[in-house]
Amino acid sequence: MEPRNLTLLTDLYELTMMQGYFREKDANETVIFDAFYRTNPDGNAFSICAGLEQVIDYVKNLHFDDADIEYLRGLGIFDEDFLEYLHNFKFSGDIYAIPEGTVVFPREPLVKVIAPIMEAQLVETAILNIINHQSLIATKTSRIVFAARGDGIMEFGLRRAQGADAGTYGARAAMIAGCIGTSNVLAGKLFDVPVKGTHAHSWIMSFPDELTAFRAYAKLYPSACILLADTYDTLGSGVPNAIRVFQEMRDAGIPLTFYGIRLDSGDLAYISKKARKMLDDAGFPDAVISASNDLDEYLIDSLKIQGAAITSWGVGTNLITSKDCPSFGGVYKLAAIMDRHTGKFIPKIKLSENTEKVTNPGNKTIQRIYDKETGKIIADLICLVDEEFDEKNSLLLFDPIETWKKTHLAPGTYTMRELLVPIFKNGECVYESPKVMDIREYCKKEQETLWDESRRLVNPHEIHVDLSNELWHMKAQLLDSYHYTSN
Amino acid sequence: MEPRNLTLLTDLYELTMMQGYFREKDANETVIFDAFYRTNPDGNAFSICAGLEQVIDYVKNLHFDDADIEYLRGLGIFDEDFLEYLHNFKFSGDIYAIPEGTVVFPREPLVKVIAPIMEAQLVETAILNIINHQSLIATKTSRIVFAARGDGIMEFGLRRAQGADAGTYGARAAMIAGCIGTSNVLAGKLFDVPVKGTHAHSWIMSFPDELTAFRAYAKLYPSACILLADTYDTLGSGVPNAIRVFQEMRDAGIPLTFYGIRLDSGDLAYISKKARKMLDDAGFPDAVISASNDLDEYLIDSLKIQGAAITSWGVGTNLITSKDCPSFGGVYKLAAIMDRHTGKFIPKIKLSENTEKVTNPGNKTIQRIYDKETGKIIADLICLVDEEFDEKNSLLLFDPIETWKKTHLAPGTYTMRELLVPIFKNGECVYESPKVMDIREYCKKEQETLWDESRRLVNPHEIHVDLSNELWHMKAQLLDSYHYTSN
Repeated sequence: MEPRNLTLLTDLYELTMMQGYFREKDANETVIFDAFYRTNPDGNAFSICAGLEQVIDYVKNLHFDDADIEYLRGLGIFDEDFLEYLHNFKFSGDIYAIPEGTVVFPREPLVKVIAPIMEAQLVETAILNIINHQSLIATKTSRIVFAARGDGIMEFGLRRAQGADAGTYGARAAMIAGCIGTSNVLAGKLFDVPVKGTHAHSWIMSFPDELTAFRAYAKLYPSACILLADTYDTLGSGVPNAIRVFQEMRDAGIPLTFYGIRLDSGDLAYISKKARKMLDDAGFPDAVISASNDLDEYLIDSLKIQGAAITSWGVGTNLITSKDCPSFGGVYKLAAIMDRHTGKFIPKIKLSENTEKVTNPGNKTIQRIYDKETGKIIADLICLVDEEFDEKNSLLLFDPIETWKKTHLAPGTYTMRELLVPIFKNGECVYESPKVMDIREYCKKEQETLWDESRRLVNPHEIHVDLSNELWHMKAQLLDSYHYTSN
Repeated sequence: MEPRNLTLLTDLYELTMMQGYFREKDANETVIFDAFYRTNPDGNAFSICAGLEQVIDYVKNLHFDDADIEYLRGLGIFDEDFLEYLHNFKFSGDIYAIPEGTVVFPREPLVKVIAPIMEAQLVETAILNIINHQSLIATKTSRIVFAARGDGIMEFGLRRAQGADAGTYGARAAMIAGCIGTSNVLAGKLFDVPVKGTHAHSWIMSFPDELTAFRAYAKLYPSACILLADTYDTLGSGVPNAIRVFQEMRDAGIPLTFYGIRLDSGDLAYISKKARKMLDDAGFPDAVISASNDLDEYLIDSLKIQGAAITSWGVGTNLITSKDCPSFGGVYKLAAIMDRHTGKFIPKIKLSENTEKVTNPGNKTIQRIYDKETGKIIADLICLVDEEFDEKNSLLLFDPIETWKKTHLAPGTYTMRELLVPIFKNGECVYESPKVMDIREYCKKEQETLWDESRRLVNPHEIHVDLSNELWHMKAQLLDSYHYTSN
């Protein structure tokens, strides 16, 4: 598929600021911006980052074509020399990012852009749009997959998604976070992920009766024969008719490999248990019972606790919109500006009355610290890029706000891994995105680095995200100096 | 821009059902599907329908290209003759729809598809995806615009939207429902709507100090000079520095046409009133105070009640995701099948334990009934297409559930208007979509046909949607007959 030109997918102020930098400053002044978020959606203890491949595609394809320039000229606020600059625009900076499918925590840079200020400013909106969306859906999906305790979750939300991209890239994020398939055929084609689905009520209604409709479906798709049982009366006609068709298939010698029913309404706990008994009694203990109908992680969890006889779940609206929390609050903040004389980065900080909203300055990276024995995450450490750590030394972690809360890690008890990896170097992409199904495998392993206490749906245990001693002092100093100058 | 091929933007089951129809039935059997919704989002009394232009583009461009066919072949579930059929696929049916920007109510067909069953089935998912998304955002926006009591609302949500389309087509829907502009440049280009925006905190932070940053901005954009005042200390430095710059502009003889400040944090009621006084006292009573920061209709309403001195509002996340209710529950249901011998439509009904979920059968349209004197909506009447009404006769309306609740309209006291208009005839588009800004004007007039009691944010007065006598009896008969056969 032809890549879409999303260059104008930006807020107008990025362009007005760009022209401002072009006019007022050294346009090549190199800066660092961090894209990070402050709160996990849904009270979760972690998020799953996703969307990097689409960010890469976006940056690779960044260019203002003639029609874009013509449109901008028509706005009457841009000068010809600036439009000429845009016409020749190409991203020339560096980008670092955390690979897709990684478990991430608040305040960690998910994407770090080091580029001339005009370029770094332009890409803000699209990077946030893409990362916010896919990370949101991946995080929501991980909760739903967790609630299903090993059962398969199918992504069925396309018709309720917020537009075509929300459906398609939402399906991508859902696959990354553990869905076993999606109903979205375009997502299947674009990302080479399994597509799933059987039939709708309209199939049943378009035949003279339910039994005829079931028979027609079974004849066509005997090897994946899931019959929708609730069009008229689930236990009164749907399940008995399905059993009759399965019996006819068996009598005709057709192998029953993957078959069963789907429930899309009613009391799923009660009906699934009754249906299970009917199917078992009729000699079909391996018939699958799948369910859909406005499911989310809480309903699935509750149905599991009630002993519902459902082992396959189609989840639509609540997954594809992340209904309880439909936005991921990623922001993009200036962290440093390079001094053109020394070539060193001068750290920048954004103040706020709210301590949590004060940004972390400087050129940073993230070290993830694992317990050597279990492989579980102990904490993340946001630090400066030039800091060196040695797992053979002891490591002192402390809470960046309540600094008296300290943890001491003895040498040899922990391992470290740097999360940010190079994506673009001098405008050239140096990273190859894995296939979605490979990211899915990686994401599964990532989630296994969390204790179940951090995965539970309500009030999970939070993972510490600390600052290195050096970063903490740099930040404290900047905060102090600000108060001196403002008084 | 090259139209995107969204043909595979569909659920897999649409294709498996299509193959089923192809194999098992007269593939040319003509059917009627209605796209409608059951509940207004956010407890609203109405919705604004939107997205029709994109539905038209989608249907016009429907075609399976070689790569699509190759992908489907690879799934191993479709036969060659069916793939051949898809390769030659072209939509050949009729579509009726309610024009974009119209006030609509639950259970009314927003889109009606009359087509061979295979075609009508295929388009289900994309039609719902598009209409659900844009109608959701238009409806949310109409609430926010209502809360602002005539102040301008700017759509600023792109970075938090659920992907590129959600940002771009969401901006389109927001403009339809009354926003005065969007920050999304791509939306501005695609839909010829005003784009708005000034600068971010990063602009301020990239200069040595706030005053220098303000001066640089004012120099560049003197005729639209809105300065972001909250980077360091809104009342302590932001507003005084802005005033200093405005004074410098005045002293230099630069006309202050559109200028002022933007507040993006803190207690907006308190700060805006203080800032207003400071601006007024300094001789800038016409300086605009605009605000952003996680606003929604309730916050704007509350700030208005508190007397906040804000007259321009930037609304992002909560608008572009419809945060309190991020999905519009549009569904697509079979309403009739043509008898191939008689050429007449046989009405079809979908039953449900929940009376509200029982569908309305038959080939229907909607008559909107207005009070002749005020032009306000009295009720909508869902009826069959061949029913005739005459405003010169009296009209009896009755509640379709509690049928003893009746309203009698005397001749000459009401007017009627049919809402569904032809969009496609025999596969050819017969409708020209108005420009977005024209739809916006129409939508404004549409909302004026509602009493304020139906527009208020909480517990609004609901408008009656009744069934015609003829449709009501057809439905009752179908319900009865179903119970006879199932017993």
